[in-house]
Amino acid sequence: MLIQEKVQQAAAAMESLGIDCWITFVRETALNGDPILDYIVGTDLTWHSALIVSGTGQTCAIVGKYDQKTVKDTGAYDRVESYVEGIKQPLLDYLKELNPQQIAVNYSEGSEICDGITHGMYLVLQAYLAEIGLDQRLMSAEKIVSAVRQCKSETEIRYMQKAIEHTEAIFAKVAQWIQPGQTEIEIAEFMHQERKKLGLASAWEEDVCPSVFTGPDTAGAHYKPSERKVERGHILNMDFGVRYEGYCSDLQRTFYVLQENETSPPAAVQRGFDTVVGSIEAARQLMKPGIQGIEIDKAARDHVTGQGYEEFPHAVGHQVGRFAHDGTALLGPAWEKYAHKPFEKLEQGMVFTIEPRLTVPEHGIATIEDMVVVTAQGAENLSTPQEELILIN
Amino acid sequence: MLIQEKVQQAAAAMESLGIDCWITFVRETALNGDPILDYIVGTDLTWHSALIVSGTGQTCAIVGKYDQKTVKDTGAYDRVESYVEGIKQPLLDYLKELNPQQIAVNYSEGSEICDGITHGMYLVLQAYLAEIGLDQRLMSAEKIVSAVRQCKSETEIRYMQKAIEHTEAIFAKVAQWIQPGQTEIEIAEFMHQERKKLGLASAWEEDVCPSVFTGPDTAGAHYKPSERKVERGHILNMDFGVRYEGYCSDLQRTFYVLQENETSPPAAVQRGFDTVVGSIEAARQLMKPGIQGIEIDKAARDHVTGQGYEEFPHAVGHQVGRFAHDGTALLGPAWEKYAHKPFEKLEQGMVFTIEPRLTVPEHGIATIEDMVVVTAQGAENLSTPQEELILIN
Repeated sequence: MLIQEKVQQAAAAMESLGIDCWITFVRETALNGDPILDYIVGTDLTWHSALIVSGTGQTCAIVGKYDQKTVKDTGAYDRVESYVEGIKQPLLDYLKELNPQQIAVNYSEGSEICDGITHGMYLVLQAYLAEIGLDQRLMSAEKIVSAVRQCKSETEIRYMQKAIEHTEAIFAKVAQWIQPGQTEIEIAEFMHQERKKLGLASAWEEDVCPSVFTGPDTAGAHYKPSERKVERGHILNMDFGVRYEGYCSDLQRTFYVLQENETSPPAAVQRGFDTVVGSIEAARQLMKPGIQGIEIDKAARDHVTGQGYEEFPHAVGHQVGRFAHDGTALLGPAWEKYAHKPFEKLEQGMVFTIEPRLTVPEHGIATIEDMVVVTAQGAENLSTPQEELILIN
Repeated sequence: MLIQEKVQQAAAAMESLGIDCWITFVRETALNGDPILDYIVGTDLTWHSALIVSGTGQTCAIVGKYDQKTVKDTGAYDRVESYVEGIKQPLLDYLKELNPQQIAVNYSEGSEICDGITHGMYLVLQAYLAEIGLDQRLMSAEKIVSAVRQCKSETEIRYMQKAIEHTEAIFAKVAQWIQPGQTEIEIAEFMHQERKKLGLASAWEEDVCPSVFTGPDTAGAHYKPSERKVERGHILNMDFGVRYEGYCSDLQRTFYVLQENETSPPAAVQRGFDTVVGSIEAARQLMKPGIQGIEIDKAARDHVTGQGYEEFPHAVGHQVGRFAHDGTALLGPAWEKYAHKPFEKLEQGMVFTIEPRLTVPEHGIATIEDMVVVTAQGAENLSTPQEELILIN
């Protein structure tokens, strides 16, 4: 069971961090869940619920009466207690017995995957703990949550490989199918149909998965496919991913639509594409455990600007997992919105995208997004890197 | 457009509350959204985003570069600003200009629908505001968010009526189909198929929508259907809902499986069922604008205990909207987990379930869940109330 594996991984991380209590505190998770829940319980919880891991690896869940049996069934909790009127008494009883020195909860200013507790629930917990004099022991669980999400198990890697295989197969099909005159919406629809035939969910919001951009003057990344038509001379690119057993792929591919009289792309298009390939290679070569993401981003970014292109307005790569944008460590520049994420060190088992981007004037956007896993030896490809423009006749 | 309607409703609520600035502050909403987002933007946002309504009804969205066009397309924001490196500067510039006396943000200890901001994002915002001396003006937006979600527009009521019609039609079909010997899982599967034929999503987690309980010794509410078989003499009940245009239904129906020699249910079963009907009627009669939910719950609860049954371990009714458990005001008892919700007053346009429950020993659980809307005249049925046991031959 992946949930039992992940709860054990959390306990191991806590031991190495010297943290003796981690509480995930939630309510009505269908409304407002915590991104960690899929890893530690895998079901919606209705009433105030505390999922507690202690430093010795003991696990206890305190949940509303009607959620008790579902949580017991996960097999991940040594103790599953329930209540009818309120969680305060059973929670405080358990914590008095445990008497932890720290109480780590899921908040983080810099890392959104670790920022699951709502402010209201934080205030509720703080007030409860004040009653037994433990409120000063609250701390951020960022390092525990990051460890659980970032260091992928073999099972998780296998799921992501399957998601990637399906994504690549759909890209191969659509490459055979695209013709000048089709709209971005029609192309997206073709890909939705192929995905549905495989019974797979999209990796992110369906409206923009795939996103499809053809030609110059497109809306820019993240915008939904439009009525714009594919024309000869366009660069066309797509951003697409699927979920397999809850795990995502996130890949971009670039196509060029040949003019009637062309057998190969114009030099400017080829040069743009090759610059993207070179940028990815520059990043990939540097990746290894212990290096900071900012160094990887810089290598990729410098390669693009060194060829005379404008720098891309985003990080060169992010982690992937149960969300397409996952993890704390980021291959990004030191921009305010990225907080401390670019300064985190790469570790074995982290899965990253690498996705530089540049504009080829009058043709469109060249961008590739491939996926790699960090191993002791460096970055290993999970996807089959795009090394040639896909040509549409 | 529902989004424009809802943003205007928020501005009106702010005016009557005397609050001059409301900020919804989020990032990576696919990971960790705020339940209000469907009402005010209707799309995922990637980077730090501030959706701001001022007391004069001015609206401004400050979002990452790649989300700008999508947010503009909603038509709900007078101003849509974007940034690449970080939100702090454009956000502080806007707030300095506005100089609000209060800055309401989405947190609440007692009401989960109003508790959208994560603790980490609250800390980020607080630190930003401290730089311009406005951090002491932060307050809870609970009353604004409650108003937006609770007072349903005609469009919202119409969507919910459609969801209810589809749910009732599926209940009618399954009532014709159920036979002794079928398992709870088979019955749930039949309902999933009927729902999918209509192209509708389930109102809550599919695993437990419907939940199906047959006979005595069932797992209790919220648990998923099991291999338990329908037998003659069982009371069988189901909890089921669908979504129509994002809006939920949430209904329960009770069935009785006649013995070979029976033409009507045993007296104990009929008495249990009639007590549930009477309890609903006691609640419904009292409902009107201005009354507190706790009074409604008490009437329903007293009716059940007055007939000698144990009291049900949950509130007698909750609001319904985009979530099956929606709203702040609750028809519930003064239990810790319900905080101040039972003391909120009913208002026109609120949609509630009424769902008492009791056990008939040796037969099963009798429970009905119907839906009503609060009008100036009192509670008006949205669903067709179940007044007779559905008999299975």
